[in-house]
Amino acid sequence: MINISYMLTGDWLSSSSLLATATESNAEEGTLVLAGVLLSLVIIYFASKLGGEICSRINLPPVLGELVGGVLIGISAFRLLVFPESSAAEDSLIISMLQNTAGLPTEAASSVFAAQSEVISLLSELGVIILLFEIGLESDLKELIRVGPIAAVVAVVGVVAPFITGTLGLIYLFNTPAVPAIFAGAALTATSIGITAKVLAELGQLSSEEGQIIIGAAVLDDILGIVILAVVASLAKTGEIEVSNIIYLVISAAVFLIGSILLGRLVSPLIVGLVNEMKTRGQVLLTGLVFAFVLSYIATVINLEGILGAFAAGLILAETEKRKELEEQIIPVADFLVPIFFVCVGAKTDLSVLNPSVPSNREGLIIATFLILVAILGKVITGFTVFGNPDINKLAIGVGMIPRGEVGLVFAGVGSASGALSEATEAAIIVMVITTTFVAPPLLRLVFQEPESVTQTVDKVQD
Amino acid sequence: MINISYMLTGDWLSSSSLLATATESNAEEGTLVLAGVLLSLVIIYFASKLGGEICSRINLPPVLGELVGGVLIGISAFRLLVFPESSAAEDSLIISMLQNTAGLPTEAASSVFAAQSEVISLLSELGVIILLFEIGLESDLKELIRVGPIAAVVAVVGVVAPFITGTLGLIYLFNTPAVPAIFAGAALTATSIGITAKVLAELGQLSSEEGQIIIGAAVLDDILGIVILAVVASLAKTGEIEVSNIIYLVISAAVFLIGSILLGRLVSPLIVGLVNEMKTRGQVLLTGLVFAFVLSYIATVINLEGILGAFAAGLILAETEKRKELEEQIIPVADFLVPIFFVCVGAKTDLSVLNPSVPSNREGLIIATFLILVAILGKVITGFTVFGNPDINKLAIGVGMIPRGEVGLVFAGVGSASGALSEATEAAIIVMVITTTFVAPPLLRLVFQEPESVTQTVDKVQD
Repeated sequence: MINISYMLTGDWLSSSSLLATATESNAEEGTLVLAGVLLSLVIIYFASKLGGEICSRINLPPVLGELVGGVLIGISAFRLLVFPESSAAEDSLIISMLQNTAGLPTEAASSVFAAQSEVISLLSELGVIILLFEIGLESDLKELIRVGPIAAVVAVVGVVAPFITGTLGLIYLFNTPAVPAIFAGAALTATSIGITAKVLAELGQLSSEEGQIIIGAAVLDDILGIVILAVVASLAKTGEIEVSNIIYLVISAAVFLIGSILLGRLVSPLIVGLVNEMKTRGQVLLTGLVFAFVLSYIATVINLEGILGAFAAGLILAETEKRKELEEQIIPVADFLVPIFFVCVGAKTDLSVLNPSVPSNREGLIIATFLILVAILGKVITGFTVFGNPDINKLAIGVGMIPRGEVGLVFAGVGSASGALSEATEAAIIVMVITTTFVAPPLLRLVFQEPESVTQTVDKVQD
Repeated sequence: MINISYMLTGDWLSSSSLLATATESNAEEGTLVLAGVLLSLVIIYFASKLGGEICSRINLPPVLGELVGGVLIGISAFRLLVFPESSAAEDSLIISMLQNTAGLPTEAASSVFAAQSEVISLLSELGVIILLFEIGLESDLKELIRVGPIAAVVAVVGVVAPFITGTLGLIYLFNTPAVPAIFAGAALTATSIGITAKVLAELGQLSSEEGQIIIGAAVLDDILGIVILAVVASLAKTGEIEVSNIIYLVISAAVFLIGSILLGRLVSPLIVGLVNEMKTRGQVLLTGLVFAFVLSYIATVINLEGILGAFAAGLILAETEKRKELEEQIIPVADFLVPIFFVCVGAKTDLSVLNPSVPSNREGLIIATFLILVAILGKVITGFTVFGNPDINKLAIGVGMIPRGEVGLVFAGVGSASGALSEATEAAIIVMVITTTFVAPPLLRLVFQEPESVTQTVDKVQD
């Protein structure tokens, strides 16, 4: 029996273009990629809900459950969801399922695997963009500006303290050479805004003064992180620091953030007027998304991060009369995309570096213990630099800066690609990132919550 | 200055995996693919809203505007959004923009183009799956079963009448050989459920008796289309008809639809119970989507269409107490994904076959005129086979079956790939499909609407 499923799928024109250049096997692959993406999404949502529900029941933040759910289906455990960067097509259980149920031929396995992974990775990137857009919408620009000086101090201390302690500690305690020590120190400076913001939202603390200081400092840390990464990358490449590059990045980040907010405030009344004129479905949501995607694109193009643009767009639109409507409509889109991001973060986390039976891991684990201490203490002290308000939860601010998440791993990856890092140092950085990322959500909940307010918050999160 | 943007994008682990196998150029490509997708989405949403708003103002269905907006940005006009099946990377204005603004190197252009197109195509396929899920949610299973016999007659007549008229007409009037004539006849049988359902929803007629007959008949036509396509494809390949294949397809389609609805009704109380136990955000939406994606996956795997599974899932969940909540939450997701589908359909439509200065087009246009007449009349008469209810809008039912959309083009593509079709016949089929697809939405609005109810409907659509 011939396989004709591809002929009638939604993917009609890629399966039979008007120019009829597509071959049958191309078309069949299109259907199989769709099947693979559907299966991946089912597994991702299942893992995210299973993990999230278990965590919310044992009073841990749901996002931690999504991360752990991701680990369980990812490269470290059941290998349902793996990616071409670390695995071959044969390692993917989804590809095996497609071979067994959908008749995926072996010779097409790797191209279907690559295409499916590309789509899932991109959906997860859209997820974090939507997350930051939502965070921006829920933030208060005036409050952010008000806490700006405090946030700036928190951000700078949170970068300088762990960087100096980590780098000097590695050099003097562990006899690490200077360049890898600087890399490890740099990895300690990062703050993962995604994880912290998600936990804050789950706790209903996003718009509290502490929440806004953490968000402001995390955004500044993102910018500082871009600059530091550029510095260490050029250090690893050329052995020297390119001052022009640093200046360019600092200026472009400042110009972008301030410029987009100023320009955005001028433009947003026009956008609202336009939306009010529109009569077709989805006008508020799509206009908001176009605005967010345009700023994300510009941020990407000028070598900043896409999520900075989405956050700025959210901040700007939060000041308009459409805030409420847009927030309501972005929630289901975020529910659809954001879990893909967190589950993918977990799925891509390779816990094999924690296995002490591998010799290089053992050395790495010792260095890691040091890095974890520096990572946690170096951020916790930042809270105590907060001035002017004695009632503020200083511990919570420091704890909110702990998770290194994706940004920390980028340092490890860039360092590793440059050849500057030893296996042990690289493993240590990764263990530090994993630990801070997974330990921060429960710690945050701990420092933010009185025991009696637990059930109330769960109800709030339940939406 | 080095380009370091890739180091800190959301695409962190594909840009620097834990195993650090990713090269810098891979990582940089990841960021550029994200930039390309963001730009594509901005252009798609812009085109869909511009077209939709203009159409709604001149009293045409917004979805027609989305299609035309797609044509304007697609291969036939400005080539902002083109796909690898019909164009090279250099033809894509988005790729040129990435080269000019984001520093995309020429040697990476084709792989970034391929990855970005893969993602957009898949988002458009998810779009039509979500659309059919939403249509299923808004449909009434009891009503569908009630109108089932009528819908079956409409579907069968709408398949048989244009097939026989078209095939015999081509053979006797145009001296077309039998196999291409059968292909063209087969292409005339299709009904594009996506376009009709969207227009019906826009007119607020989805749950009317006419609407439910059209939806029921279009679903049956989809199944008949799969069977017919299998028949003509094996005819073109082997010169004979594989009876076992036909029997398999008919039985699997029937078993799937009836089985999933029966099983689904048993399972749905468990699903609702599970959702009621869940405490984390997005529980209703994600559980619904998992259910829809599982049925879509099964439908794809057994060589049916994914959209049939999504439709069945919607029908089943529409009978639960969560219908309302799920409908509200699916709307923003649909607003996010569905325009991608319609704009891509337009963007992939190559209007160059309509150019009469090309000789083969001229012959094709004459055949096309004949096919268009058969296509419209062959479906319009189906409405007059409706029995039992003299008050029903028979013309509307026939008109609702007119658009051939994606399914008709699949026939042209498969026929073309098999080498059975002459250029003229292929062009004629494509022109017929384009015409019926673009003419059906305004005709549908015409036959469904009294002039005085126009503004009211616009308000309804505006939601």
